[in-house]
Amino acid sequence: MDRMEEVLRGLSEGRLSVEEVKGLLAAADETEELGFARLDHGRRRRKGFPEVIFCQGKTEAQVAEIFARFTAHDACAFGTRASEAQYQAVLEKSPEAQYSRTARIIWTGKAGAEKKGRVAVMTGGTADLPVAEEAALTAEFFGAEVYRFFDVGIAGIHRLFSVIDEVRRCDVVVAAAGMEGALPSVAAGLLDSPVIAVPTSVGYGASFGGLASLLTMLNSCAEGITVVNIDNGFGAGYSAAQICRAIHRDK
Amino acid sequence: MDRMEEVLRGLSEGRLSVEEVKGLLAAADETEELGFARLDHGRRRRKGFPEVIFCQGKTEAQVAEIFARFTAHDACAFGTRASEAQYQAVLEKSPEAQYSRTARIIWTGKAGAEKKGRVAVMTGGTADLPVAEEAALTAEFFGAEVYRFFDVGIAGIHRLFSVIDEVRRCDVVVAAAGMEGALPSVAAGLLDSPVIAVPTSVGYGASFGGLASLLTMLNSCAEGITVVNIDNGFGAGYSAAQICRAIHRDK
Amino acid sequence: MDRMEEVLRGLSEGRLSVEEVKGLLAAADETEELGFARLDHGRRRRKGFPEVIFCQGKTEAQVAEIFARFTAHDACAFGTRASEAQYQAVLEKSPEAQYSRTARIIWTGKAGAEKKGRVAVMTGGTADLPVAEEAALTAEFFGAEVYRFFDVGIAGIHRLFSVIDEVRRCDVVVAAAGMEGALPSVAAGLLDSPVIAVPTSVGYGASFGGLASLLTMLNSCAEGITVVNIDNGFGAGYSAAQICRAIHRDK
Amino acid sequence: MDRMEEVLRGLSEGRLSVEEVKGLLAAADETEELGFARLDHGRRRRKGFPEVIFCQGKTEAQVAEIFARFTAHDACAFGTRASEAQYQAVLEKSPEAQYSRTARIIWTGKAGAEKKGRVAVMTGGTADLPVAEEAALTAEFFGAEVYRFFDVGIAGIHRLFSVIDEVRRCDVVVAAAGMEGALPSVAAGLLDSPVIAVPTSVGYGASFGGLASLLTMLNSCAEGITVVNIDNGFGAGYSAAQICRAIHRDK
Amino acid sequence: MDRMEEVLRGLSEGRLSVEEVKGLLAAADETEELGFARLDHGRRRRKGFPEVIFCQGKTEAQVAEIFARFTAHDACAFGTRASEAQYQAVLEKSPEAQYSRTARIIWTGKAGAEKKGRVAVMTGGTADLPVAEEAALTAEFFGAEVYRFFDVGIAGIHRLFSVIDEVRRCDVVVAAAGMEGALPSVAAGLLDSPVIAVPTSVGYGASFGGLASLLTMLNSCAEGITVVNIDNGFGAGYSAAQICRAIHRDK
Amino acid sequence: MDRMEEVLRGLSEGRLSVEEVKGLLAAADETEELGFARLDHGRRRRKGFPEVIFCQGKTEAQVAEIFARFTAHDACAFGTRASEAQYQAVLEKSPEAQYSRTARIIWTGKAGAEKKGRVAVMTGGTADLPVAEEAALTAEFFGAEVYRFFDVGIAGIHRLFSVIDEVRRCDVVVAAAGMEGALPSVAAGLLDSPVIAVPTSVGYGASFGGLASLLTMLNSCAEGITVVNIDNGFGAGYSAAQICRAIHRDK
Amino acid sequence: MDRMEEVLRGLSEGRLSVEEVKGLLAAADETEELGFARLDHGRRRRKGFPEVIFCQGKTEAQVAEIFARFTAHDACAFGTRASEAQYQAVLEKSPEAQYSRTARIIWTGKAGAEKKGRVAVMTGGTADLPVAEEAALTAEFFGAEVYRFFDVGIAGIHRLFSVIDEVRRCDVVVAAAGMEGALPSVAAGLLDSPVIAVPTSVGYGASFGGLASLLTMLNSCAEGITVVNIDNGFGAGYSAAQICRAIHRDK
Amino acid sequence: MDRMEEVLRGLSEGRLSVEEVKGLLAAADETEELGFARLDHGRRRRKGFPEVIFCQGKTEAQVAEIFARFTAHDACAFGTRASEAQYQAVLEKSPEAQYSRTARIIWTGKAGAEKKGRVAVMTGGTADLPVAEEAALTAEFFGAEVYRFFDVGIAGIHRLFSVIDEVRRCDVVVAAAGMEGALPSVAAGLLDSPVIAVPTSVGYGASFGGLASLLTMLNSCAEGITVVNIDNGFGAGYSAAQICRAIHRDK
Repeated sequence: MDRMEEVLRGLSEGRLSVEEVKGLLAAADETEELGFARLDHGRRRRKGFPEVIFCQGKTEAQVAEIFARFTAHDACAFGTRASEAQYQAVLEKSPEAQYSRTARIIWTGKAGAEKKGRVAVMTGGTADLPVAEEAALTAEFFGAEVYRFFDVGIAGIHRLFSVIDEVRRCDVVVAAAGMEGALPSVAAGLLDSPVIAVPTSVGYGASFGGLASLLTMLNSCAEGITVVNIDNGFGAGYSAAQICRAIHRDK
Repeated sequence: MDRMEEVLRGLSEGRLSVEEVKGLLAAADETEELGFARLDHGRRRRKGFPEVIFCQGKTEAQVAEIFARFTAHDACAFGTRASEAQYQAVLEKSPEAQYSRTARIIWTGKAGAEKKGRVAVMTGGTADLPVAEEAALTAEFFGAEVYRFFDVGIAGIHRLFSVIDEVRRCDVVVAAAGMEGALPSVAAGLLDSPVIAVPTSVGYGASFGGLASLLTMLNSCAEGITVVNIDNGFGAGYSAAQICRAIHRDK
Repeated sequence: MDRMEEVLRGLSEGRLSVEEVKGLLAAADETEELGFARLDHGRRRRKGFPEVIFCQGKTEAQVAEIFARFTAHDACAFGTRASEAQYQAVLEKSPEAQYSRTARIIWTGKAGAEKKGRVAVMTGGTADLPVAEEAALTAEFFGAEVYRFFDVGIAGIHRLFSVIDEVRRCDVVVAAAGMEGALPSVAAGLLDSPVIAVPTSVGYGASFGGLASLLTMLNSCAEGITVVNIDNGFGAGYSAAQICRAIHRDK
Repeated sequence: MDRMEEVLRGLSEGRLSVEEVKGLLAAADETEELGFARLDHGRRRRKGFPEVIFCQGKTEAQVAEIFARFTAHDACAFGTRASEAQYQAVLEKSPEAQYSRTARIIWTGKAGAEKKGRVAVMTGGTADLPVAEEAALTAEFFGAEVYRFFDVGIAGIHRLFSVIDEVRRCDVVVAAAGMEGALPSVAAGLLDSPVIAVPTSVGYGASFGGLASLLTMLNSCAEGITVVNIDNGFGAGYSAAQICRAIHRDK
Repeated sequence: MDRMEEVLRGLSEGRLSVEEVKGLLAAADETEELGFARLDHGRRRRKGFPEVIFCQGKTEAQVAEIFARFTAHDACAFGTRASEAQYQAVLEKSPEAQYSRTARIIWTGKAGAEKKGRVAVMTGGTADLPVAEEAALTAEFFGAEVYRFFDVGIAGIHRLFSVIDEVRRCDVVVAAAGMEGALPSVAAGLLDSPVIAVPTSVGYGASFGGLASLLTMLNSCAEGITVVNIDNGFGAGYSAAQICRAIHRDK
Repeated sequence: MDRMEEVLRGLSEGRLSVEEVKGLLAAADETEELGFARLDHGRRRRKGFPEVIFCQGKTEAQVAEIFARFTAHDACAFGTRASEAQYQAVLEKSPEAQYSRTARIIWTGKAGAEKKGRVAVMTGGTADLPVAEEAALTAEFFGAEVYRFFDVGIAGIHRLFSVIDEVRRCDVVVAAAGMEGALPSVAAGLLDSPVIAVPTSVGYGASFGGLASLLTMLNSCAEGITVVNIDNGFGAGYSAAQICRAIHRDK
Repeated sequence: MDRMEEVLRGLSEGRLSVEEVKGLLAAADETEELGFARLDHGRRRRKGFPEVIFCQGKTEAQVAEIFARFTAHDACAFGTRASEAQYQAVLEKSPEAQYSRTARIIWTGKAGAEKKGRVAVMTGGTADLPVAEEAALTAEFFGAEVYRFFDVGIAGIHRLFSVIDEVRRCDVVVAAAGMEGALPSVAAGLLDSPVIAVPTSVGYGASFGGLASLLTMLNSCAEGITVVNIDNGFGAGYSAAQICRAIHRDK
Repeated sequence: MDRMEEVLRGLSEGRLSVEEVKGLLAAADETEELGFARLDHGRRRRKGFPEVIFCQGKTEAQVAEIFARFTAHDACAFGTRASEAQYQAVLEKSPEAQYSRTARIIWTGKAGAEKKGRVAVMTGGTADLPVAEEAALTAEFFGAEVYRFFDVGIAGIHRLFSVIDEVRRCDVVVAAAGMEGALPSVAAGLLDSPVIAVPTSVGYGASFGGLASLLTMLNSCAEGITVVNIDNGFGAGYSAAQICRAIHRDK
């Protein structure tokens, strides 16, 4: 609002005309219009982090164009659910772009300058790895330090106990699990840090594409668990980085 | 019913025989029988717009034949959910046919002579574009003027505000959105024109093929929203054109 | 936006101070704060119709208070899903309030001065009557003339044909039906006006509380149907009135 | 039971030994064991019609072997959900086998000698044709005469009226429809013969693979409708033939 | 249609005026309008059986009025899902009315003069009795002779075998079952008559109000089963009587 | 089958007539017909345990009558889902009957003479107690010794570890849990005995009446878990007792 | 683990016997066994906050007993989903206990000594108030300062904008909404703090008891949202307090 | 725990240092860390059987590596849901590995030395064979003798009766069935051994990928049935072998 007051004062003091003020207020709309997309360059100002590109369902040319614009504007860009072919198209315009086949993420630059806060990323099994990597790379891009603890599911609960002390040293925990998805519940019962649960679509039969683990996590009787969408490693990693930033913000 | 009276009077006045009258009443059945399909040439009379061809699940030969018949009868035809191959088959019999790869629509001619009424077609994101184009082309075929506002979803609500005044100038609004599908709710809260909401199947995990956005739209607490089937851009465009026609009908 | 320019000009021309301008812009926020509720007195300006009160889940005192405020502000108020007890509480503060036991609506005054446009409200059966009445009273409150056609469902399709010519004279059709909910499909196949379909929860077994008729209506292969939530007579009536207003607006 | 009495009498009268009787009672088990399948040659005796082969999920060799055995035993065999490849395998052992690509049925011979009873097979649209053909061929194989009425759905209800008198002359009606699946309801309201409704998976979005039309049909408020599984043309055709047989059985 | 020809001939031969003919054609609409309901007195002519009253959701006065009208018109009436209170109201106007507390049916008179055809009504357990009685009373009202076989479910399959020969003597079988609902499948495997399966809502937990038994019945691999809605004893009894009538119609 | 041979030999040796043999074979049907129920007195011979009475949905008189018959025949009877009122009715005819308010079970006598085998019954929380008691009383009635471990859910996993050694000494484990239902998974990971998982309907929101815990248990990645219906303590207790009997059967 | 080393050293140095050491290690299990419940007094040590009592499904005596024990042990106790009657029972043993009728919470004492961190609790409508109060009281009990913003849903989005600056000053945001549940999405698009979304069961028809808003929130395309179970105000308040504690922990 | 006492005694008697004791207790954690997986070599000690590898979702290299480690450690390994390509990769490192194309299982060695106990594996139809073979091979690997009874579903119930005596001689029964899945119910009604029911995804339409048969089995009114996940032949075979081991354990 300071900005608004400043602008109004400019008008009041004659430094700005009515037309100029109307233009300036419109300029506060930091949207860039591409026809098929409207880039939100103001998101970093509003949310602290830049806009993220959901690549699925976009053509290769669209993704490449959007990456180029964001990189030009903000020196970094981050796209999820990206195919190999989309990456090749991005590379042509943004040769510095990187790609993780496992996590299906394309990125350029870094949204958070220095590592702030520690995120533990756990999985119930090996098959949950792609979702976990999506979470891990996202948290790293947005400025957190990530520790990985894979295949520590509850069928052999000793595996969880053997890492729990290391997990306890992290600020936030992301726990991804498919099938019955009970890992976050057990973990939250042992930890005092926030646990972000990610149901994965790993499983078969009555897992109904991850619905079973989603319901398990939503109904957890352990306190301190919140949940994101099925296979939404990105959402978990983002929220984890966001909480880390809040914890380590200078006070 | 005037027609019926006329026919009956013909009989009464001896101009028509009983057999002729029975034939004439049957002729009122404007159906053309193709074996695999029964074309409803009376639909324009009853509904104001000609019958539309749902191409999905029909063979290429069937689609081509139906297009030829409708075009012959009504100088226009319109088919949705059409494949490239179906279009090639149609082209052989109806060389004037046009095709939109994005919207998967084949058409010949135009159902509505002059542009009447303005339809705004909005999308939450870029991936909703095919559904939005289906709506837009449909509304145009049936006689409306269409204004497109793509990628104005609520994650960056400033994008919506930057176009809302233009949207407000339209008679009807079609709002297509996947994922959480909240765009129609926010839009309807700001507009006094009818909003036709189209849930799209864009999303993953607990979007359950568009169920999430469908439920969002049905449960909207904003007034003035009605909903069509998931990905049913056609239905939204048709209803929008129908309302436009009613508004701009000479009174 | 004219208002904004006016205010800015006032500032520019020295008629208004910066503080006054900030106050005036805030005043554009026509919200009234009651602690448990925030009344949106600007809705009529934005949407053409005043805010509606969803009474379900509110205490009797809250409903009475909100009614009093809206009536004071706008000389009319309209509350849906209202209980007899809530009506008694409203009566104490707003003795002119009326109540329909069937439709469960409380109202004072009238939102639309003169009857504009004709709405047909049809039901499949007698048990759909409460939902249909909710639609009818809503459309009347918001300024439309309503024609009722009850119990014309498709099990005896001659009942529908015996009224179809009268229905055809209306601008918009609201069709409420439970069980298999096929009435809107059949009606839309015979009419050229927009049909707003309201699934009702009438039925048993695999009707799943109205889900069956909701799906029927969403999947209709007749053109010109849009759908509202199960039992949402209000939403259908509101949209019908809104379309009527657009049709009969002076041009 | 006569047979049992006969056998017991043989034992009682010394014509048969205890061991022979036990063997004979076991022989009443007319099952043929193939390792991967157990053919039920007694089904014709119990049910009046021979066993039917569900080809889906069986290897080509298994299908060919089963066809050969049934044909050898009963001079006819009938397999549903059959692929082209399965048909080729069957042909090698049973060169008289026939195949319908549309209905995906393989058959040899005929289960019912002379045509008895008339079955009307109707569809809502052209895309329902494969299911309808499965019903029609099944009813024919099991001895009924079949009349086809395709594409008479309710969006253009005049199409239904133009054939209803012919339909009325049939003993049983099979009505297949996808999308909102309202055809059986409307038809049953006009007919006094049993209507067997077949929901098809034709549709998209909230049709949920035929669930929408299934629910429509189960919730029909027209009397005289019973329902089979989604896309189960076979089941409808079989039941229709069974009712025809009962009607035309010599009394 | 003969009637139509007759009327037209009357016009042609001057015995009838155009107005008279239009009136006569309208009179073919045998609907009686009560405001809240539209009675379909033509249903017996069209369907062979009179209209049935779905009492649930109607007021007591409405039910009583409708009963009186139907009884006056057709000397019989039949209402399902009726409460004790509705029955008391009916009694005042129609003192001959009868009521079954178990089946929740009110009726006066009889729709079918003499018993024609035999219907077996079976239940899996004792708790399915209300649904079975609804089916049995319906079949009896519409002219069939009913044989009851209760509590013969498959957990003790010997109970089914002990009655199967008696069941086999019936023309049609109605099999009602809750919980896993497997009775119709087993019965149909042993019988050559049509089996109408009625899922009941008896059960708990994952029976989901009868969904489990509904799905069981729809997916039955035994041939000759068709299904009605959950707890829809009426529908099953009606269809059974309809098939009986077709079988025993004079030929 | 020995019995059959014996009977046949009697016939062969002239000790029995054909009619007698048919009677004897029929007598093998140990069903007692009560009109509303058919008691299966042969179940103990076939299954080792007598028939169990599902009281829900039966009238008080029916339950009392069935109890009296079973007790007379077998000196014991066992009824689940029984109300207090049903118990009072049973008491009048069977004064020795006992009742557990928590488990809602009525019983007389004992189906298994001496305690054989040990069953551990665990619950996640205190609210799962009624289901657990149903399991415990069932297992005891059918001859097992039961050890109870309540409120050992995974939110405080130390509670589970403090009892795990005692649990390990049992032959079979019944684990009942609502909400996210993860107790059986964790327990099965620590035990080498069969775990029978009972989802309970304890929970709210997205527990959907126990669906969440049911899915959790079905999708468990721990080996050695099988599942029964939601709240089906009886089924779990019965299966546990059955396995115990098999383990401790003299060999 | 220091404690373990200490104990082992005691053994090694002869200060403790093997039996004593085993006893001491067992004592580390801080569980209190009540028969029907096992209190987890170690939870504060492990999780930083004491165990919470889920009152639903427990008897009044059980709740009272558990409250007394926790209060005795920890000087505070907190129970959710508590009835008025349970509160009366608690009062007898713990006269200092307090109760919120709206939030259905009983509590004694305070888990967090001084206010640390600010939590904003927002609701879409007035009917979401009970869930919001559950969240607010929970966050306060566990040591956070709570700011309430009720009835700021998106149907009148100006209401949200009028409070957004105040919300922005909080560390964590809890956003509760029923119906279409879009409030968290819009809020998260405007804020840089973590948003915990609580779907409420407010709504009707296709809201399916809160499923609609749950899916909306899980599918949100705004970053920084995590979700808890339907109506789980407690879970949201707990997690919010936990994040606040992490942010304001001395570093 | 004996091991723990031994270790503590070593410390007490000075044979072990504090550091050594801490190391030994840690060594009890028999986990092998591979980065992408954490092998649980202690599972045989805890559960009696070694860990099983869920191959689906793992890369070929990962599967091969895990197989090599387990075989090296335990002389046997067992992997389910394995592809042909995964098997080729395993073969390179473990040339003794075997593969069943039908059951999709890779294995080396044998977990149970000598055959102990008899398991009957039944299927409803031929298409259920892959799931049944998964169960059979699993039970054999874990030490049971398996008897196969395929295609004995209830549509021709005589097929079941012809094998029931052989089935009765087994200790445990695994019954796999798709479509309506009623085989386990009928079988359990005739047997006194535990029945483990496996719903398969065989079917179409409203079988919803096996949901129909899953619900049938969960709702079975026959006693002695427990259920595993859809298509989870492995789980059924494992539990069957586990029960067999308990029955034939030396006592």
